[in-house]
Amino acid sequence: MFDFRITARAGRARNGLLPTPHGLVHTPLFMPVGTLGSVKGISPQEIRDIGSQIVLANTYHLLLRPGPQRVKALGGLHRFAAYSGPWLTDSGGFQVMSLGHLRRISEEGVVFQSHINGDLIELSPEKSVAVQEALGADIIMAFDECPPYPASREYMKESIERTLRWLERCFKAKTRPDQALFAIAQGGIDLELRRISAEATVAFDAPGFAIGGLAVGEPKEAMYPAVELSTRILPESKPRYLMGVGHPEDLVASVALGIDMFDCVYPTRTGRFGYALVAEGRMNLKLTRYLDDPRPIDPECDCYACRHFSRAYLSHLIRAEEMLGLRMVSLHNLRYLHRLMEQARSAIAEKRYGEFARDFARRRFGQEIPGWFARALQEGGHWE
Amino acid sequence: MFDFRITARAGRARNGLLPTPHGLVHTPLFMPVGTLGSVKGISPQEIRDIGSQIVLANTYHLLLRPGPQRVKALGGLHRFAAYSGPWLTDSGGFQVMSLGHLRRISEEGVVFQSHINGDLIELSPEKSVAVQEALGADIIMAFDECPPYPASREYMKESIERTLRWLERCFKAKTRPDQALFAIAQGGIDLELRRISAEATVAFDAPGFAIGGLAVGEPKEAMYPAVELSTRILPESKPRYLMGVGHPEDLVASVALGIDMFDCVYPTRTGRFGYALVAEGRMNLKLTRYLDDPRPIDPECDCYACRHFSRAYLSHLIRAEEMLGLRMVSLHNLRYLHRLMEQARSAIAEKRYGEFARDFARRRFGQEIPGWFARALQEGGHWE
Repeated sequence: MFDFRITARAGRARNGLLPTPHGLVHTPLFMPVGTLGSVKGISPQEIRDIGSQIVLANTYHLLLRPGPQRVKALGGLHRFAAYSGPWLTDSGGFQVMSLGHLRRISEEGVVFQSHINGDLIELSPEKSVAVQEALGADIIMAFDECPPYPASREYMKESIERTLRWLERCFKAKTRPDQALFAIAQGGIDLELRRISAEATVAFDAPGFAIGGLAVGEPKEAMYPAVELSTRILPESKPRYLMGVGHPEDLVASVALGIDMFDCVYPTRTGRFGYALVAEGRMNLKLTRYLDDPRPIDPECDCYACRHFSRAYLSHLIRAEEMLGLRMVSLHNLRYLHRLMEQARSAIAEKRYGEFARDFARRRFGQEIPGWFARALQEGGHWE
Repeated sequence: MFDFRITARAGRARNGLLPTPHGLVHTPLFMPVGTLGSVKGISPQEIRDIGSQIVLANTYHLLLRPGPQRVKALGGLHRFAAYSGPWLTDSGGFQVMSLGHLRRISEEGVVFQSHINGDLIELSPEKSVAVQEALGADIIMAFDECPPYPASREYMKESIERTLRWLERCFKAKTRPDQALFAIAQGGIDLELRRISAEATVAFDAPGFAIGGLAVGEPKEAMYPAVELSTRILPESKPRYLMGVGHPEDLVASVALGIDMFDCVYPTRTGRFGYALVAEGRMNLKLTRYLDDPRPIDPECDCYACRHFSRAYLSHLIRAEEMLGLRMVSLHNLRYLHRLMEQARSAIAEKRYGEFARDFARRRFGQEIPGWFARALQEGGHWE
């Protein structure tokens, strides 16, 4: 179980197979976010239909409601949310910070205020693991601190050291053999700290390693060197998960460097705002011109929305804030990212990832391919 | 086309077949409301899966956006909204009144203010028919006035006479032979006016007749005599449509009196508020006790929600205002009403409608069956 096997390589990009108690997953992959145990508006059947493999749920949100003991009593996430494929839960650390109700951080853990009723709640490595064991996901994440961007070097150093001590406590606290605990390397965009954190993290024999603390507001020119460095340090033989990343161009560039897993609210959130992901970027369905456009969002897409609805109808629904519109654009966006990763896997298997990524970039960026993207391909060995 | 055929009778209740250009429908039936061309949150595939037969769209809303010419250019409602089964559009009259932005009513028609941008818009019998021809539903409705409850007898008399003159203008304005124009009898709860309106309305050789102006706030003891009288006057050989009625007990009582068609936002609206329709009435999924209840909403129901989700999960989603929760409870509620009408049709075919209705009432009301319900069964010939 969780014995990651690499099945193909193209430069530093790789295809892998990760067996979990709830099914075999193919990497590289994108994981939809089901914050409260539901990918907003999408049913478990649709999740399967569009080719999702792992669904991510947020420990912070489920801790507040309905509560981990309740989820456990109802059969864990798999039965509670009626999705019997693999789940991943985050540790709650990121949300405590990002939702801005953090009250105190200490060696012991954090105290935060519930964004729902103001209650003070403690979260520690031990408690995060206990909550994640109750929720019962296949993959659980170490409790870490994700410092804000920018943060002082001094604070960052202190933080990564504390996160390493927390990591040790997470492994000690873990009791369920049927869950994989992934470790998270931090360090922001400071390459020296990134190296220190990554090297110390890989000393733990985790079944998978994540890169945290990126895509939190820093420029891409600063983010990619940190990704590149991390993928050189994180073991070849374990899945590498770049947390919170979900823009199509970032998926393509990061896979080039050897990233295997991604998650982000981007496709569903931007979908609810009426933006559909297409090869050229984002289609703003609120624009007047789409009200008369009989074409599907993307004629190449095989999702339910593209097989049945015109841009005109979806634009009408989105303008009127009709639930079906929000649902359909979210569904399309998830399918778009899943198709992108399917295409990436085919390209890796056929040793033409560079060609695939350059084709993607030509449609996405036109003549001007950004430097960070080109460099990721070069450093990944995909540029002649 | 539109040649209604009665296939079974039990007392005054009847089963019928109504052929439309987009399929044969079985009556009695309940029609989900897709105000803006979408049943809130539900896909066309789901509409078919739950056994909906006709979807109702609102002329008033579609006139304001996206506009009838746009819908027409995109292939009419059937293609625009990707539901190729039968559609029915109302005339816009009711919404003009109920949305409260009516500015002037005259012999010519009405002037109202758009609830979206305040524009003054005219609607007349001719314009309503033209808009409904552009939208392209299978069944279109005559432009009528639905006076508020209560209204003075004098006003009501004036109103039903004007509605009759408008009805004549609707039939003159109609050009499409592939659409059925249903006439609407008004008269509120005044049985004398109800009789005058119904008798004058049936003089028009319409392919179907509706009863309007009921379920607008009057007590059930006042509504049922009007339904009972109407079904005696409206022709046996044509479908009878009781507009705006959708509570399960009203469906069962009205079918007993010979009603064939219903529509209402009730199942979807109450679903979005977290109420699930069950045999005993409404289940308020926001109640704390459901947070730990592993059972489906209704173990007898075959909808997707009942086959996959617990009350606990749905209660969690509804409390958190998650879209999937709103969607699933709406879906269940529609399926509940469709199953109820399927059961009614079986009971009529098997000449046991009275037994069916009394079983329904025992579960719905317990020992105290309301007088209006019992009287409807008696007058419908279903009570020994």
